[in-house]
Amino acid sequence: MPPLPPDQLIFPASQAALLEPYLPPLHPQNANPVNKPFTTLTYAHSLDASIATLPGVRTTLSGPQSKAMTHYLRTRHDAILIGAGTAVADDPGLNSRVYVHPTSSSPSTAAEVGVGGGGEPPLTSQPRPIILDPRGRWEFTAESKVIRLAAAGRGHGPWVVVAPGTVVEEGRREVLEEVGGRVIRLATGQNQDQDRFGWKDVLGMLGGEGIRSVMIEGGGEVINSLLAGGGDEEEDEGLVDAVIVTIAPTWFGQGGVVVSPPKLKGGEALRLRDVRWCPLGEDVVLCGRIAR
Amino acid sequence: MPPLPPDQLIFPASQAALLEPYLPPLHPQNANPVNKPFTTLTYAHSLDASIATLPGVRTTLSGPQSKAMTHYLRTRHDAILIGAGTAVADDPGLNSRVYVHPTSSSPSTAAEVGVGGGGEPPLTSQPRPIILDPRGRWEFTAESKVIRLAAAGRGHGPWVVVAPGTVVEEGRREVLEEVGGRVIRLATGQNQDQDRFGWKDVLGMLGGEGIRSVMIEGGGEVINSLLAGGGDEEEDEGLVDAVIVTIAPTWFGQGGVVVSPPKLKGGEALRLRDVRWCPLGEDVVLCGRIAR
Repeated sequence: MPPLPPDQLIFPASQAALLEPYLPPLHPQNANPVNKPFTTLTYAHSLDASIATLPGVRTTLSGPQSKAMTHYLRTRHDAILIGAGTAVADDPGLNSRVYVHPTSSSPSTAAEVGVGGGGEPPLTSQPRPIILDPRGRWEFTAESKVIRLAAAGRGHGPWVVVAPGTVVEEGRREVLEEVGGRVIRLATGQNQDQDRFGWKDVLGMLGGEGIRSVMIEGGGEVINSLLAGGGDEEEDEGLVDAVIVTIAPTWFGQGGVVVSPPKLKGGEALRLRDVRWCPLGEDVVLCGRIAR
Repeated sequence: MPPLPPDQLIFPASQAALLEPYLPPLHPQNANPVNKPFTTLTYAHSLDASIATLPGVRTTLSGPQSKAMTHYLRTRHDAILIGAGTAVADDPGLNSRVYVHPTSSSPSTAAEVGVGGGGEPPLTSQPRPIILDPRGRWEFTAESKVIRLAAAGRGHGPWVVVAPGTVVEEGRREVLEEVGGRVIRLATGQNQDQDRFGWKDVLGMLGGEGIRSVMIEGGGEVINSLLAGGGDEEEDEGLVDAVIVTIAPTWFGQGGVVVSPPKLKGGEALRLRDVRWCPLGEDVVLCGRIAR
């Protein structure tokens, strides 16, 4: 086996197997419309539930094993979705650099990922980056990391989802389209905040575009609104199929970007079911499904 | 073995063994003064770091196994300390009802706890309840749970720590002393909030009273001020010897009582070291030491 590239991440197949019950079914690369993609909510936070020490500040939280897990999860979904705030704050790459290290106990499913002599996963295993940006806050250029990676064939061109009335400059649209990305227009919620899409609308649009699985990574506003459900009793059912949360043994202190949904009706707690805790390096990974 | 009482909790010795490296050394029941007791900070919170859904509301959070663990920890410390707010909100018992179920892999240390035919631990294994109440907010009576348990020989009479100028009614003092409790007067911090004791003062006083180990259970104000350290660089060192946090796979939502220390100087995170994650029922237990 040739030496791995310096930024290559390694995720043991034995750990991948622990996550398997919470992941979308392995799928062919066809693009038939689906009603709603399999939706995985995944992020990492501190003991005090902060995903960043301060708003707008990129924060390294979890250890190398957790980072490798995130990159593995990216290979297992058709798309990765973030909010504009995270795109602005982090300039993220949104591709996968994981190599799944096969072990004797590895299931064939996990070991099949990361083929190609130990290099990056092939482009067919890279997720489509989706940026929710109703008002056009993310001022991407050809130098934005996700665009550069797509230009280098190391990821897909991003889809930027904006509200119907939002102006996207011609030059910027071209930058996207040159790397295989697109601007997608979607109506914001009628009765809701005009600056937000409804989750049912977002997931329905993605399904219609042939996205069969999506992992939602952040930031705080995206996560909290998703945990709150669609804001509509009927929509709440089944928005999120699986939750994978990494917790680091660290307090960020007050003033961080906290994951905590609005209070539910009747003050009830929002529980996870089918819970599994997997220690991973210094961190722990919590897998579960939302019990509504 | 006679049947266990209905409110008896059972904690497997195999799980107790996982906690052992983080606990105070098993000790004889002498009461020689020590400089500072071994201090364990322990509490349970939701994924969004809330120990209660709302201020002043008693909240059941963790599962039966975690509750049994808490009661086991109580047998392993000379004292259990809470703030007045928790005493007012919860009317807690602060005794132990655990029976440690021996297993073939049990260490002799853990199996020795909970003797007495499977009933409650003997009074010598019960912790001394300590309530920090500088301004006399806790209006206890003979009917308060901790007093009733002490009167029934199922726990020790509490020590109520008040500021020098705080009036404690004669009748109330008698209620305490009848069950072997005491009022203890301690100066509040000079340069700090006059309504708070300094942690160095509290722990020094307890050591002088022969308390060799103390577990600090809550509430939010107590925990956050302890995580913040003594407010003095020199005091910070070694205030807390071990941290044992139970996390439940539940979100309480915004507005809860959140464990999150004030921001540290320079915005640094407060890390745990020697970390161990122990899944326990639906919850996970995090053990560690504070790395300052």
